[in-house]
Amino acid sequence: MVNIMSSDRIYNFSAGPSMLPLPVLEQAAAEMTNYRNSGMSVMEMSHRSKVYLNIFEETKADLKRIMSVPDTHEILFMQGGATFQFSAVPMNLMGKTGKADYCVTGNFSNIAMKEGKKYGEVNIACSSQDRNHTYIPAQEEINASADASYFHYCCNNTIYGTEWKYIPETGGVPLVCDMSSNIMSVPVDFSKYGIVYAGVQKNMAPAGMAVVFIDKTLAGNEHPLTPKLMSYKLMIESDSMNNTPPCYTIYMLGLVLKWLDAQGGIEGMAKIKSGKAKILYDLLDNSDMFAGCAEKASRSDMNVTFRTTSEELDAKFVKEATSAGFVNLKGHRSVGGMRASIYNPMPVEGVQDLAAFMRDFEIKNK
Amino acid sequence: MVNIMSSDRIYNFSAGPSMLPLPVLEQAAAEMTNYRNSGMSVMEMSHRSKVYLNIFEETKADLKRIMSVPDTHEILFMQGGATFQFSAVPMNLMGKTGKADYCVTGNFSNIAMKEGKKYGEVNIACSSQDRNHTYIPAQEEINASADASYFHYCCNNTIYGTEWKYIPETGGVPLVCDMSSNIMSVPVDFSKYGIVYAGVQKNMAPAGMAVVFIDKTLAGNEHPLTPKLMSYKLMIESDSMNNTPPCYTIYMLGLVLKWLDAQGGIEGMAKIKSGKAKILYDLLDNSDMFAGCAEKASRSDMNVTFRTTSEELDAKFVKEATSAGFVNLKGHRSVGGMRASIYNPMPVEGVQDLAAFMRDFEIKNK
Repeated sequence: MVNIMSSDRIYNFSAGPSMLPLPVLEQAAAEMTNYRNSGMSVMEMSHRSKVYLNIFEETKADLKRIMSVPDTHEILFMQGGATFQFSAVPMNLMGKTGKADYCVTGNFSNIAMKEGKKYGEVNIACSSQDRNHTYIPAQEEINASADASYFHYCCNNTIYGTEWKYIPETGGVPLVCDMSSNIMSVPVDFSKYGIVYAGVQKNMAPAGMAVVFIDKTLAGNEHPLTPKLMSYKLMIESDSMNNTPPCYTIYMLGLVLKWLDAQGGIEGMAKIKSGKAKILYDLLDNSDMFAGCAEKASRSDMNVTFRTTSEELDAKFVKEATSAGFVNLKGHRSVGGMRASIYNPMPVEGVQDLAAFMRDFEIKNK
Repeated sequence: MVNIMSSDRIYNFSAGPSMLPLPVLEQAAAEMTNYRNSGMSVMEMSHRSKVYLNIFEETKADLKRIMSVPDTHEILFMQGGATFQFSAVPMNLMGKTGKADYCVTGNFSNIAMKEGKKYGEVNIACSSQDRNHTYIPAQEEINASADASYFHYCCNNTIYGTEWKYIPETGGVPLVCDMSSNIMSVPVDFSKYGIVYAGVQKNMAPAGMAVVFIDKTLAGNEHPLTPKLMSYKLMIESDSMNNTPPCYTIYMLGLVLKWLDAQGGIEGMAKIKSGKAKILYDLLDNSDMFAGCAEKASRSDMNVTFRTTSEELDAKFVKEATSAGFVNLKGHRSVGGMRASIYNPMPVEGVQDLAAFMRDFEIKNK
């Protein structure tokens, strides 16, 4: 029996895995032992069965429609999250020229770059390391290579709270983007991208999968040692079913997409998320105690990094916030301070209540 | 709200993904929106949080205890199912001598063998291809190589319904076994194995993960192009958290393990599964209409393959069985006929009811 009031729930500002919409969780619970009179759980379905293939196809079609994915691009569901793609991208694409460009604007883009080095020559096209990744370099600061096989960047940096506000110009080199932490929060112009990928555990579904949007012309030139599950060509040919896919995760993504539709799709979500971020950034800009960590022009709408006037006060804030039901606000150790991750499923009330709590904390601790 | 009577459920004989214990699904549903007063779903938890790490550690400890895993072996949770291991095993182990032995006794062992060929020289140590994989070769039919880096076999063949009744002797070459379709149904003597792995979607948990039991001395010699998520060394060092693991799948495995404990653990389950298989094999051996597909000495207790006297009657049987609530009984196209997959979660009543239905069908269709 499930009889959980939403008031039993807390505001979870985790950077990922992170909140899912409550109606989605409620529906998953209600359908757990018997999915729509099938007599079985989605977890128990053969991935080749009609009942499951209906879920799979509908999820893929909804994703294509909601994200306006053109026919030039195939949608893949792959296990291993974004980290798996850090290897898949070079194993599939590096062979063209043996070289690739990477922008290093945070932790994950750095890990991706290091993994890329295993498979070819890497040029660091830009880096924000000089100011501890508090900003996104401008187009004129990027040194792109004309002979790169691809150009890789991560458009939202979860740990540092920065977000790219423009799409880098690469002069025809295929653009590859890790959108793990802001996917489905803004419209994407896929005509600009060779590959977009995202680990699903922030804005899409529970952990255990990445969604890959790939220009089909980029597949088919993988390194001979590429593991079969890592071959974009085989994954396209098998419609993501080279082996048993993470069936339940795909089902959960389907439920999230229905919920997203009801919020006005990506356009609707883009407005909502900007409004949520503005609440916190306005507070930071008008506070004597709290200050944002990222430079203003590069601030992320998904991960708001901030700090107080001292590490002691930071610790006190995190502790009291946790007691008040605002959890996982501690910043990553490489930045310190606090981080509020406010992905799509975080309700605006959660952000408003956090802002009220922060104002109250400031008054009490002047 | 969940209010599902078990009578709403059907008997699902799917080869995988397949049935899960009903009490496990009910508990997952009940805990979906608020796990034990944490205020969040397990799906929403940071994998680094205390509340989630408790689940992770308890699941791993339960698995170690229930399967009697010695300290020589590490337990890994890896994404990608067994197919991912088809690549991981050679990428990590083939380098020792550049050669490996493979036994081909079915579809998946054949796929594993083909993947192995990408990374080195493969010797087919034995094959049951000559009689369409209806049997398991005897020890004296195996031509093992003294200089193989490892010896790979699959101890239960889902499609053909055969199961190894002995552990092959390899003369000191590390033994690697794919146990995807009979893991946790019989005790395993890990001292005999270098690596045991299993996709979880049959006897353990929902699809999207493999559990790997690896002799720690085998890690650390991977090919330089091994993707980071495929490195056993890195996975051991990071305790399966090189990146975000499939958190919810691990939680589900934990629930299944608690259920397994209540059935008497592996020893208890071994008795139950033999009893279930005997019901069907006794029927097949005493029927004028139904006959088993696999040779008697090699029959699997997990996947019972059988047929009637004609393809038309097979089709009629499958159709009527489906209507009666026994689903997914159609055999794989490479074998034909029928297959009843009776993994741990299939209740004995399901098997008894199927047997009664079969007897009834035989009388009506004489």
